[in-house]
Amino acid sequence: MTTRRYMRQAMTILALTLVRCAFAYADSGQSAVLQAYLRPPTVPAPADNVPNAARIELGKALFFDPRLSGSNWISCATCHNPALGWSDALPTGIGHNGKQLSRATPTILNTAYLPVLMWDGRSGSLEDQALGPVESADEMHQDPDVLVGKLASIPGYRTLFERAYPGQGISKATIAKAIASFERTIVSGEAPFDRWVQGQSDAISASAKRGFELFTNEANCVACHSGFNFTDGSFHNIGVIDPGPADNGRFAVKPLKAMRGAFKTPTLRDIALTAPYMRNGIYRTLEEVVEHYVRGGDVRENLSAEIHPLNLSAQDKRDLVEFMLTLTAAPVSVQLPVLPSGVTAELPRGPHLAGLSSPASTRRNP
Amino acid sequence: MTTRRYMRQAMTILALTLVRCAFAYADSGQSAVLQAYLRPPTVPAPADNVPNAARIELGKALFFDPRLSGSNWISCATCHNPALGWSDALPTGIGHNGKQLSRATPTILNTAYLPVLMWDGRSGSLEDQALGPVESADEMHQDPDVLVGKLASIPGYRTLFERAYPGQGISKATIAKAIASFERTIVSGEAPFDRWVQGQSDAISASAKRGFELFTNEANCVACHSGFNFTDGSFHNIGVIDPGPADNGRFAVKPLKAMRGAFKTPTLRDIALTAPYMRNGIYRTLEEVVEHYVRGGDVRENLSAEIHPLNLSAQDKRDLVEFMLTLTAAPVSVQLPVLPSGVTAELPRGPHLAGLSSPASTRRNP
Repeated sequence: MTTRRYMRQAMTILALTLVRCAFAYADSGQSAVLQAYLRPPTVPAPADNVPNAARIELGKALFFDPRLSGSNWISCATCHNPALGWSDALPTGIGHNGKQLSRATPTILNTAYLPVLMWDGRSGSLEDQALGPVESADEMHQDPDVLVGKLASIPGYRTLFERAYPGQGISKATIAKAIASFERTIVSGEAPFDRWVQGQSDAISASAKRGFELFTNEANCVACHSGFNFTDGSFHNIGVIDPGPADNGRFAVKPLKAMRGAFKTPTLRDIALTAPYMRNGIYRTLEEVVEHYVRGGDVRENLSAEIHPLNLSAQDKRDLVEFMLTLTAAPVSVQLPVLPSGVTAELPRGPHLAGLSSPASTRRNP
Repeated sequence: MTTRRYMRQAMTILALTLVRCAFAYADSGQSAVLQAYLRPPTVPAPADNVPNAARIELGKALFFDPRLSGSNWISCATCHNPALGWSDALPTGIGHNGKQLSRATPTILNTAYLPVLMWDGRSGSLEDQALGPVESADEMHQDPDVLVGKLASIPGYRTLFERAYPGQGISKATIAKAIASFERTIVSGEAPFDRWVQGQSDAISASAKRGFELFTNEANCVACHSGFNFTDGSFHNIGVIDPGPADNGRFAVKPLKAMRGAFKTPTLRDIALTAPYMRNGIYRTLEEVVEHYVRGGDVRENLSAEIHPLNLSAQDKRDLVEFMLTLTAAPVSVQLPVLPSGVTAELPRGPHLAGLSSPASTRRNP
């Protein structure tokens, strides 16, 4: 045996021993492995938009206000519904006039920690992302310049903006900054897994602990679902098929072969609340998601996925699901804001029904 | 002067004196006139649906759950938005696939006290009304029998229904009863006017007090807007015109000549929160509403309205608006429920995007 081979073997043994020690220490919360899952000490925010109470209050009002949409009927919270895990419980989203969108609505939860936003990562910050769905013709269908005028016509908003961004006025920039400030408050609560990481050995079941070991080793879910937020913030093709035309994902932003069919790794936090799963909502349950990985994904346009079939027993699969369920915190009941009252400027005066674009129904409602 | 004429004159003087006394006593809260505006001691409920905590909790979940609609995207709260005075700040409502409805969304506030529901009074109880918008093709577009199956497929709802209506199961009847139970909790808070009625003389301004006197006398608004809830629960033609085809209102339910163009008197409680006004949202401000009454309404199809022009000064008009604003209580921030998680049964399994009725967009969102 050469010295090099000896060294390599020794290192392997040392590494395996360290991993074993990590798990041995897990129950006392001392594990170096587990340290990677501790909550980051701060929620990052850009220097020119440090959150404060006024900014968060304004952002919350905007987030819940349907007047942010062209129809005055769809708010950010319509799809990012706090009562449904800040998502919509739908396979894929719905937008203006019931438009069926092609991708699943991602949860807002922990977007504060993400380096890039959207399934294809085309947005680099919450400030950059906030007005995207507002101005999308298919989603909220609102010209953001018109929105500025609408908000400026509501006295309550003039006050809220002046408090939040003194002297900066109501602009696309301050609207986006305020929404981003509110989104930075939407972070996951303490889940059973977190209590286990902190040393409470009975916080999760033996099955969940086995699931975590599978997650971080044999199944190697941790290759992408890493850290406190259980995402590497990067892009991977995991062999999800589209029933309709193929969605090339990240490739539209970075036209590299490896990015064809690659999508941003979603968080697994509060995963019990955000079914159905995958970027097109193709699976209804976590059991179906595990089966997807076990079979190594599905073949799509002859593009091989980054994942490979797994050899897992029925118990292994149950353990993996059991572990994932420990990532869901106790549900939080969200307090709705009181929105500034007032009819927005763009509604015509007088008999303004005449100004509606679509004809009034001849059926009588309500 | 005959004895009869003398008696009549004496009675008139007595009556006028009593009214004057009533106003003189107003500031000490002793007025018999003001007693009519006291909050009813109880919120009425039918004997077979006495509200309790479990029924209210279930009803609140249903009220906020978009899975009550055919699209799984529209909840009762979408249009009856607690952040917008339990209405939608729109001239007329919006429904399934962005359908423009022909009538304004009425507030849910104090519907608990109403003898009949809907603008045309076609519904006799909250229980009878609750599923109307759900099954309307133009509104929530949900077959209620399918809804029963959807809710039964969500374990959390099975628990909530069993707690609320033990042994009664999930049915159209129990869904409606639960929603009605929640709606009975949506009653107006204490407004400045209420504090004045209770004897706090500085609770409303001198202008508002003059406005109240106009409201109850010269302007005679109280002929329809009477009692604690500022509605007689009856139907009147007040000469509101439709920009489109004329809406005959109550006539569709009671085909009497007097009911043509007559609509249920809406509450004035929290009126500052529910602009725009009238059954078709034709006025943006209370000032415009007052002008409508001052000119005696508008002529519609040669149907004379029940109202007649008023001779009011500019100050009178300001006083009336000032009074109406005292009927708005401090806004209440509503706590969203945590909805039972789970994908509803009607979503097909597997690659269920294929089951969507409308084609997926080729544009990529989100």
